[in-house]
Amino acid sequence: MSQNAFDQKKQHILSEIQSDSLDLSPKGTIDELCWPIMNLINSHADMVTTSSCSGRLSVFVEGQKLHNEVLKSGGKGEGGKWLFVSHNQNEVRNWIQRLSEPIHWVSEPDNSQLDPTSRLILYKFEPFILHVKCRSFHIASQLFNTAMSCGFRESGIGSNNIVAVRINIKLDVPIGYLDQETRELRFFVSPAYIKLIDEMTLAKYNENARKMQELLKKIDSQVITISEQGSVDKQPAESKEERRQRKRREGLLRQQQAS
Amino acid sequence: MSQNAFDQKKQHILSEIQSDSLDLSPKGTIDELCWPIMNLINSHADMVTTSSCSGRLSVFVEGQKLHNEVLKSGGKGEGGKWLFVSHNQNEVRNWIQRLSEPIHWVSEPDNSQLDPTSRLILYKFEPFILHVKCRSFHIASQLFNTAMSCGFRESGIGSNNIVAVRINIKLDVPIGYLDQETRELRFFVSPAYIKLIDEMTLAKYNENARKMQELLKKIDSQVITISEQGSVDKQPAESKEERRQRKRREGLLRQQQAS
Repeated sequence: MSQNAFDQKKQHILSEIQSDSLDLSPKGTIDELCWPIMNLINSHADMVTTSSCSGRLSVFVEGQKLHNEVLKSGGKGEGGKWLFVSHNQNEVRNWIQRLSEPIHWVSEPDNSQLDPTSRLILYKFEPFILHVKCRSFHIASQLFNTAMSCGFRESGIGSNNIVAVRINIKLDVPIGYLDQETRELRFFVSPAYIKLIDEMTLAKYNENARKMQELLKKIDSQVITISEQGSVDKQPAESKEERRQRKRREGLLRQQQAS
Repeated sequence: MSQNAFDQKKQHILSEIQSDSLDLSPKGTIDELCWPIMNLINSHADMVTTSSCSGRLSVFVEGQKLHNEVLKSGGKGEGGKWLFVSHNQNEVRNWIQRLSEPIHWVSEPDNSQLDPTSRLILYKFEPFILHVKCRSFHIASQLFNTAMSCGFRESGIGSNNIVAVRINIKLDVPIGYLDQETRELRFFVSPAYIKLIDEMTLAKYNENARKMQELLKKIDSQVITISEQGSVDKQPAESKEERRQRKRREGLLRQQQAS
C-alpha cells in the first residue's frame, strides 16, 4: 500500500469512528474503555485502529452444529441466540434479572437427555482485543513487540501490516441447555455456581482493565515517543507540556479535517 | 537472519526433534498427532517447526494469585498444581479415576467460604498450537494466510518470522477448589456435569483433529507445492509418486546428516 493509500484509508476510518458507525459488534458502538488506547494510537501518523472490543460477558444458546463448523471467536454459531451481552462490568452481578425469558433451574445435567446435537447455553468472558493497521512492517513489529512485552501473548501480525493485540484472560463455561420440545431454558448449574462465575468474571474485568492501562503506557513510551524522536540520541525529548500542546493541536486539526 | 544462520538453526532444531528432547511441556515429548504437519513443514527448505501441542485436557489447582499476574496460556500459575494433563483423548472419560488424591463432592459452591484468594480447580481444553520459524517474511505470510483460510483465526506472525498457528476451540471451567485448611480437593459441580464437559472435550478433540487434517492438506497444496513449483506456469507439477519418492530421499538425507 502506498503512503498515500494508507493516509486515505486512515482518514476514512477516523471519520467513521467519529460518526460512531464503525463497530460491527451486537452493541454497535465503540466501548468507552477503548477510547484512550485508540486515541493514542490514532495520534501516530503510521497507525490506525480498525476494530476493538474492551472485553465482554456473553451468554447464548448455541446454534445448530454443522459438520464443518468452527465457531468464530465469540460467535454463537448459525441459528444461535444471544441471551445477554454486555461490555459493562456493572451489569455482571444481575444479568439474570435482565433476561427476557424465565429460567428453569434443574439441579444437574441429565445426560440421558443430552447428546451432541443438544443446544447448550454457554457463558463466556472475552478480554480486550484490538486490531491496528500500520503503514509499515517496521511499525507493526514495534507495536507487536510492545504488546507481547506487557502480556498480550496471543498477539500477532497479519496481512497488510494489521496487528491483532490479544490476551488470554478467558472463561468459557456450559451452564444449561435449550429444551428443544418445550423451548425452555434449563440451567443445570446452581445459582451459587452462577454467582461464583460472575465474581470470576469481575476479577477478569479488573485484570483486563489493568493490562489495558499497562499497554497504554507502554505504547506511549515504546512506540509513540521513540518513533516521534526518531532516535533517542538525535533529538531532545519533548517535555510533557510540549507534548500535551502538540496533541491538542493535532486533535483540533483532525476534527477540522473530518468536519 | 542470513540464509546460513537459518539453515544452522533449522539443522539444530531437527536434530533435537529427532532426539525427542525439544518439547518443554509437562509431557516432554512431541505429540503423535503433530508429526504429519511437522514433517510436512520441515520438508520445506524455508520453514522449521519450533514448538507444537496437538491439543490437551488439563485439570489443575490455581497458584497463588499475585497482583500483577496474568496466567500464561495454559499455565497453572506460580505454586499451582497439576492434577491431570493429557494429550490422549482416550483418557478423557476416566481422568477422575487417574487422580492420585480423593475428591470430596460438595453439591454447590459455598460462596461464604470462597473469596478472591481461594485457589480454584480449573478444567481446561486447549486446542492444537504450532510455532513455525520461516526463512523470510514472504513464506511466513503464505503460511499465515493458509492457516487463516482454514479457520485458525487467532494465528499471527511474530518476531523473526515466527508464525503462531492458533484456533479458538476452548473450554475453561471452574469445577472446585482446594480447601486450604484440610488440603482437600472439593468439587462443587456434580459427576453428571463432569461427564457433560468430558463429552464436550471429546467433541472438541474431534473438531481439532479435523481442523489439523484440513490444515495439513492446505499447507501441502498452498505453501509446499506452489512454492516448490516457483510459479504454477513455469514447471509441470510433480506426480504423487515422484513426490513420494523425493520425500523419502530427503528424509533419508536428513537422517544421515543428523546421525
